[in-house]
Amino acid sequence: MTQPTHPTDPSTAPGVTADELATALERLREQVPLVQCLTNVVVANWTANVLLAVGAAPAMVDNAEEASAFAGIADGVLINLGTPQQDTVAGMAAAVAGATAAGTPWVLDPIGAGGLPWRTGHARTFLGAGRPAIIRGNASEIIGLAGGAGGRGADTTAAPDGALDAARSLARTHRCAVAVSGPVDHLTDGEHLVRLANGHEWLTRVTGSGCALGALMAAFAGSGSAPLVAASAATATLTVAAEQAATGTRGPGSFAAALLDELFLLTPDTLASAVRLS
Amino acid sequence: MTQPTHPTDPSTAPGVTADELATALERLREQVPLVQCLTNVVVANWTANVLLAVGAAPAMVDNAEEASAFAGIADGVLINLGTPQQDTVAGMAAAVAGATAAGTPWVLDPIGAGGLPWRTGHARTFLGAGRPAIIRGNASEIIGLAGGAGGRGADTTAAPDGALDAARSLARTHRCAVAVSGPVDHLTDGEHLVRLANGHEWLTRVTGSGCALGALMAAFAGSGSAPLVAASAATATLTVAAEQAATGTRGPGSFAAALLDELFLLTPDTLASAVRLS
Amino acid sequence: MTQPTHPTDPSTAPGVTADELATALERLREQVPLVQCLTNVVVANWTANVLLAVGAAPAMVDNAEEASAFAGIADGVLINLGTPQQDTVAGMAAAVAGATAAGTPWVLDPIGAGGLPWRTGHARTFLGAGRPAIIRGNASEIIGLAGGAGGRGADTTAAPDGALDAARSLARTHRCAVAVSGPVDHLTDGEHLVRLANGHEWLTRVTGSGCALGALMAAFAGSGSAPLVAASAATATLTVAAEQAATGTRGPGSFAAALLDELFLLTPDTLASAVRLS
Repeated sequence: MTQPTHPTDPSTAPGVTADELATALERLREQVPLVQCLTNVVVANWTANVLLAVGAAPAMVDNAEEASAFAGIADGVLINLGTPQQDTVAGMAAAVAGATAAGTPWVLDPIGAGGLPWRTGHARTFLGAGRPAIIRGNASEIIGLAGGAGGRGADTTAAPDGALDAARSLARTHRCAVAVSGPVDHLTDGEHLVRLANGHEWLTRVTGSGCALGALMAAFAGSGSAPLVAASAATATLTVAAEQAATGTRGPGSFAAALLDELFLLTPDTLASAVRLS
Repeated sequence: MTQPTHPTDPSTAPGVTADELATALERLREQVPLVQCLTNVVVANWTANVLLAVGAAPAMVDNAEEASAFAGIADGVLINLGTPQQDTVAGMAAAVAGATAAGTPWVLDPIGAGGLPWRTGHARTFLGAGRPAIIRGNASEIIGLAGGAGGRGADTTAAPDGALDAARSLARTHRCAVAVSGPVDHLTDGEHLVRLANGHEWLTRVTGSGCALGALMAAFAGSGSAPLVAASAATATLTVAAEQAATGTRGPGSFAAALLDELFLLTPDTLASAVRLS
Repeated sequence: MTQPTHPTDPSTAPGVTADELATALERLREQVPLVQCLTNVVVANWTANVLLAVGAAPAMVDNAEEASAFAGIADGVLINLGTPQQDTVAGMAAAVAGATAAGTPWVLDPIGAGGLPWRTGHARTFLGAGRPAIIRGNASEIIGLAGGAGGRGADTTAAPDGALDAARSLARTHRCAVAVSGPVDHLTDGEHLVRLANGHEWLTRVTGSGCALGALMAAFAGSGSAPLVAASAATATLTVAAEQAATGTRGPGSFAAALLDELFLLTPDTLASAVRLS
């Protein structure tokens, strides 16, 4: 007997199917979405390689002079606050404005939100200037962005379950999808809840796994998937590939190289059959 | 029977031999040229590792305070416009001035030229301030730099063949070599034409393959090879190593690691015998 | 018979034991120190991955608005001058102030000191504003920072032995440990001298080996080891892992991936038995 759900609480309704995830990956491969990444200097290379491996086209146009116009050309935009400086934050503001004007879906990854007030302020300014398709973070960052106490940098100290209220609140306020990374990933659009239980602990030993996930979400959103499907497909793609990459590798170095291989080799059918979705 | 060439069109005359490419690699290994890279944040790490693997010495001195003086110490300079910001563009201008004053050969890689007007303007300013040894780009960027319509970021949408007129025009105007990357690479000094037909499609799945190629060109030019030979030797070295790296790897992640191995292991003899030159 | 030492010259007294190195690694793994890295754009990714592989938690908080406060939260701080710009140098000054106020141990890696006057000035300003736990560099940089003629960028041209006088002088002036990298690494606190003779030549073919070593020193210092022990444990950990990584790899690309694996797999017992300490 399965546990009964509460039909009066729509926020626990399942939101996506394995077939939808497979279709989203198929569509990404066909469309080769151009993803503009305004991201941190630590993970820019890794993020571009993850996008190329899966079949998207990265473009790191992140200066204030070009970012706005390019956000009208790009299919999706990533705003990642990992290493903000005055000039790159100005570029992000321009990209948010350009994406909003052009209707380009954009993803906000508020690295360090809550624990670091300056960048938390910038993240909230971006949310006030436009509506993202997806907000992505770990539990501390989602709680911090929503107004609670945050964590220490990109590190996470709060359990994903505890961040669910903050995620639902953000999703309803900004009418977007919110993804909370953790051993089990939780995603919501404020009404539905998606749980994804794939992945491998070595993802936490490769810097930028979460940052690259945000870029993948922009790639899926930029190839026509709705926000909750896009965020779920990106998460499933990365975590299923990670499970396959961990097989036959010895540690985080060989794992990272194998992860790019597996992202390249992953088929929609394998994605649909390997995903652990609830 | 070989196809007759038109002796009255000097721009189709062959410009380099396989032996010259091998000699250029041998000389690079002996001299360990110091290559100053003013490049984008996405590929800085990869570029340095490519240079180290092949036998050159990278130095990423890219601020406006030090770039000019260092261009007088360096053996070759790379100017890559992948992620320009105001401060790094100022560093590039200083490096161009320093290289020009000292006679240090420099390479211009005008990433995104044509499609992105702000950086295209900077690229043209650099060309007005000094004479590069080599200009390197994909077809869209070479067309864009010469004044035609450009592409979308680092992506390429125009066929290399279509960029040949633009390349010859740039080469004659700036008295330099121009290299157009593609499935077949085309290189010209305005008089001679070199076609190189090595490589592997996975090069397009590793970010910064083209950017690292520009750095390799600066390394070859910085170890005494003339511009067209330097650009050709760099292209042949990277693409022959790529063919070897693709053997026995599963995707772009293992391929990228193997590419560094093969650049390290490549001998001048293997280069001369494996290159497909016309 | 062992060679007699000169009891009147304390600077040749051995400073650490293999057991102390093993204990330091054990403590790092237990404490997962949070290491704030203000480092160069070339090696930021590699540095973070080295820290994650060994068991530390990297956080690249490097802007002037956040760096000071975060240095009070972090367990250790790295200041690396590889690609300084005005904004990142301002962030470094803020981090030094914050670390000094909070008593957080910090490491100075004066890349290019001596050869490049602008950044050498910044390095000396940092030393005037606070007392580092550790200064780390190659022979040219240590000589250059102490006031002698420096080298060309991150490259090293002076033998480590020749830098010993400069190292002892810096250690005594700033009451810190000083580490000089080379085929044999030399470390001193001004009184004791540690020689470590592990490593592999391919470390010089992977960009950022030295930079990551500075970050490892901050991780060891940030998990409670005294400066000379921390610097020695970091050096031994990296160079012993490098020897193991070189076994069964073909060149610098596969070596770099294997190095992360070996840093992850290295046990305190293996470290103590493999280290060549004198």
